[in-house]
Amino acid sequence: MKINRQRLELNLMDLAQFGLNNNGGIDRSLGSDADAKAREWLIQKARSIGLQVRTDAIANIWMQNGDSDRKPITVGSHHDAVPNGGKYDGAMGVLLGLELAQTLSENDYRLKHPFQVVSFTAEEPNPYNISTMGSRSVTGKLSKSTLILAAHAGNGTPLSDAIKKAGGDLEQLENSQLSENAMAAFIECHIEQGRNLFEKNLPAAVVSVITGIYRELVTIKGEANHAGTTLMKHRHDAMLAGAEAALVLEKVIKHVNRNDVVGTVGKYDIYPNSANIIPGEARFILEVRTPNKQMKDQIMEQLDKEFSLIEQKRGVSFQREIILNQPEAPMDRDVINALLSSDGTMPVQTSMAGHDAVHMSGIVKTGMLFVKSIEGKSHCAEEETDINDIEIAGNILLEAVLKLDKQLD
Amino acid sequence: MKINRQRLELNLMDLAQFGLNNNGGIDRSLGSDADAKAREWLIQKARSIGLQVRTDAIANIWMQNGDSDRKPITVGSHHDAVPNGGKYDGAMGVLLGLELAQTLSENDYRLKHPFQVVSFTAEEPNPYNISTMGSRSVTGKLSKSTLILAAHAGNGTPLSDAIKKAGGDLEQLENSQLSENAMAAFIECHIEQGRNLFEKNLPAAVVSVITGIYRELVTIKGEANHAGTTLMKHRHDAMLAGAEAALVLEKVIKHVNRNDVVGTVGKYDIYPNSANIIPGEARFILEVRTPNKQMKDQIMEQLDKEFSLIEQKRGVSFQREIILNQPEAPMDRDVINALLSSDGTMPVQTSMAGHDAVHMSGIVKTGMLFVKSIEGKSHCAEEETDINDIEIAGNILLEAVLKLDKQLD
Repeated sequence: MKINRQRLELNLMDLAQFGLNNNGGIDRSLGSDADAKAREWLIQKARSIGLQVRTDAIANIWMQNGDSDRKPITVGSHHDAVPNGGKYDGAMGVLLGLELAQTLSENDYRLKHPFQVVSFTAEEPNPYNISTMGSRSVTGKLSKSTLILAAHAGNGTPLSDAIKKAGGDLEQLENSQLSENAMAAFIECHIEQGRNLFEKNLPAAVVSVITGIYRELVTIKGEANHAGTTLMKHRHDAMLAGAEAALVLEKVIKHVNRNDVVGTVGKYDIYPNSANIIPGEARFILEVRTPNKQMKDQIMEQLDKEFSLIEQKRGVSFQREIILNQPEAPMDRDVINALLSSDGTMPVQTSMAGHDAVHMSGIVKTGMLFVKSIEGKSHCAEEETDINDIEIAGNILLEAVLKLDKQLD
Repeated sequence: MKINRQRLELNLMDLAQFGLNNNGGIDRSLGSDADAKAREWLIQKARSIGLQVRTDAIANIWMQNGDSDRKPITVGSHHDAVPNGGKYDGAMGVLLGLELAQTLSENDYRLKHPFQVVSFTAEEPNPYNISTMGSRSVTGKLSKSTLILAAHAGNGTPLSDAIKKAGGDLEQLENSQLSENAMAAFIECHIEQGRNLFEKNLPAAVVSVITGIYRELVTIKGEANHAGTTLMKHRHDAMLAGAEAALVLEKVIKHVNRNDVVGTVGKYDIYPNSANIIPGEARFILEVRTPNKQMKDQIMEQLDKEFSLIEQKRGVSFQREIILNQPEAPMDRDVINALLSSDGTMPVQTSMAGHDAVHMSGIVKTGMLFVKSIEGKSHCAEEETDINDIEIAGNILLEAVLKLDKQLD
């Protein structure tokens, strides 16, 4: 039994029409007309292949082939996109789920478990400033009040309106909570978004763990002063202290020398930010991603020491506030094994980006399969994944579902 | 003949009432009611000591003791202040001019030259974004059209309204142009705004040259990318390239190791400035102040080399645009000599801040006298200068005027 590559390719092209812009990118964020049309298309497609469709309170779309006493095996991802995003990020995982359902159905293959496809709401950053919205809502990580209070950053319309337009109802949120082990297993297939598979010319990899993400808001207090009359030796320049801190982060991370450990200063602001005033304050976000807590702790220990040296040398003070401390999310051993090829040739790697699977992994056996991104590009119009690789991934997914169906209760 | 210290102190306190805020700072920028009241006070004070007062097209206030065939010797500065500024910056120089006029008058001392006091309009940064407005306007460095087009950054009212309120008339600008050698000499007395005199515990210093100010807008183009999935070795991080550039500037300037050479990155912005995106672009203003062009050129030559190394190492590109190249302004030898004490104990130093004297020095013999700033503070409520030092400076100024009056035609 194999998936139908032509059909899958056609579906990818069809879904990519919703939100396609003049640059060849996709504009399909939560609440947009493109989002609404994509949802309608998905629901009709699912019904046409005999699935029962349910849109929950946060507007996640659940598509299932019949009932059973057993818990479902679920495959899916998300169909929304960042502004001017790509055709594959998210959408590919949902369409692979539907392709598996259709393959099983046309082969009259009856799983022990119900087979379920999901498309989560608003995984990407969006105007409501809540990403992985669908998966966090159903796993109890977002409160109803947070969602009710959220509004569009541009026009102020409440999130509840967008959710309603998408077929949900925030007032019913408690009815959509997933219980522990609500599924037999969940598998998300996603483009890699990095260059690892592209450089090794491999079609796919099994994810072992999704990176932990740690962020600090660092505020450096120096002394604002006249940029002409203040001698170099009398300065307490917060800009230069921040520059050293960012370079120290790079040095420490490069010294670890692992592909699954990265660190970034992506946001950096100085005050008063005027050409003729020595900066009195620098405020930046320091991000570290590691596959385990020990590694993060070791890195932060080194930064503590280095930052102290900068404080002493420059007569400035660092104030540090942890603003995100999301632990790594290890994927389930059974799901990993089901995705691995029996000949041991299938590579295993860390996911350096967050996904809906992070949140799902907290309550059900979860796994992820990555497919090669051409040149590692994503979140842009140039994002592309070869249909050959998608076909390979689809058949790996199908095999894994069949194996898990046999192994799991 | 000596100046009257008590009277001068009283005048300093009186003028400081206009714009005094709850922090003890002075809010007296061009167009404010405090500016208007300060002008009224100055004009009445000048008239009360027998001076003829004229407000020119850009609202500079000229106060002169009688006519003569000779060109006047002028003493003055400005009366406006930065937001929450100090009581001495500018105001002290204007009031010392008036004190000299009154001292000469009550001693019935007749100079060969007319004696003139000036308070220039809007020397400080102000809401119309044109500083040293008065001195630049009368020395032909600001065009009428620039001034007519200027508007308040906050409420959009035209500069011409503020100038009218202050007693000027932009339409008459050509009538207020000063010709070459329009004065026998101009002397500006100003607080130092630095720590040099404070640390050496000296009351005053003669300015030999006003620093040249050179500014570049530097744009570094790197590559924006995913902060998770992009390996450290694949990054072209514009933030880090800019951090290195700012630190290189500091290194090069510190290596020159002179009190009259400073360099600053006071404005620094990165794009897109988001915690989870590797910065693709950094844009900053690099400022270098030197007392001569050769030194500036040597520094820029070193920066050229160092910036090339950063470009190569990080795979980024630097675009550099000169946005200010104001040459150093040497003070006039005769005026310097007149200000120097005969015993050779008077220190001489570079002014590291710009002043109205920069622009006046282009057309008339110009000199500056600095008075000690306590702890080097300025442009803040804590700005202070000891009345003992102001008295000393006043008598140095008086001596200098008497000497120049004898020496000059």
